[in-house]
Amino acid sequence: MRILGIDPGSRRTGVGIIEVSGREVVPVCYGVIRAGDGDFPERLRTIFEGVRDLVRENRPDEVAVESVFVAHNAASAIKLGQARGAAICAAIERSLPVAEYAPRAVKQAVVGRGAADKAQVQHMVRVLLELKENPVEDAADALAVALCHHHTRGTLAQIATARR
Amino acid sequence: MRILGIDPGSRRTGVGIIEVSGREVVPVCYGVIRAGDGDFPERLRTIFEGVRDLVRENRPDEVAVESVFVAHNAASAIKLGQARGAAICAAIERSLPVAEYAPRAVKQAVVGRGAADKAQVQHMVRVLLELKENPVEDAADALAVALCHHHTRGTLAQIATARR
Repeated sequence: MRILGIDPGSRRTGVGIIEVSGREVVPVCYGVIRAGDGDFPERLRTIFEGVRDLVRENRPDEVAVESVFVAHNAASAIKLGQARGAAICAAIERSLPVAEYAPRAVKQAVVGRGAADKAQVQHMVRVLLELKENPVEDAADALAVALCHHHTRGTLAQIATARR
Repeated sequence: MRILGIDPGSRRTGVGIIEVSGREVVPVCYGVIRAGDGDFPERLRTIFEGVRDLVRENRPDEVAVESVFVAHNAASAIKLGQARGAAICAAIERSLPVAEYAPRAVKQAVVGRGAADKAQVQHMVRVLLELKENPVEDAADALAVALCHHHTRGTLAQIATARR
């Protein structure tokens, strides 16, 4: 079972895939899609094609994306929304299920504290996935949302099992 | 030469295709993709697939989208942005060129006045395309942005010809 986590942004979109088998979780790949600062359709193309190629090559089963509902202003909110839309459509195009998690839920799942800072997220992602060094910020956030999805799925499965 | 105009929204996305041959402009099809009010990835799927199917069936050569940089609040701006991202990606997926036009430019091109209201846009779209009745609001806006793109392309071509 492979989970693709995405932390979308109009300039930098973090991506990370983890593989879960039993109790073991290992990183498959992670990195940042740089959309640059060209015209907007071109940036969306870079994000859409970047995520689509990643999905084609690494065949995740499910996708988790950070949901964000705050921004500095309406213009940056629309840009961020477009980037999220592009990333999600690349998953939709392959008929993958997409789950959304609020940033607080992601931090809670990974660090154990909804108000954790970015450095703590990077550190815990490194520890949980036994990486040699901290992943860059956006890639760490992407792996964190994938881990959050794994954790949430696990909890839901436990609840379902307990009810049987 | 066919132009697809899109007026994206998180609940209703207006679409309209016009065909240009010489000085003649005729409507090919127009309507509204209703994304409902379900969860957001599902809405994006409806928009993405709706625009993609329209493109596959009617084979436009170019795409024009209204650019919007205002919204009531950050949450609605992100939602609108996602809808735009989904619509644009459906065009990108087919490698179509995408142009963006500000709402004022669209109204200026169609009504001759940047501050025109929606009813005036509906009326002028009806007159310009010789439709029997006014198209619904979102479809009229989509046809208007397609007409704006045609007009702008025409003007640029005239400038290029005059310079030769």
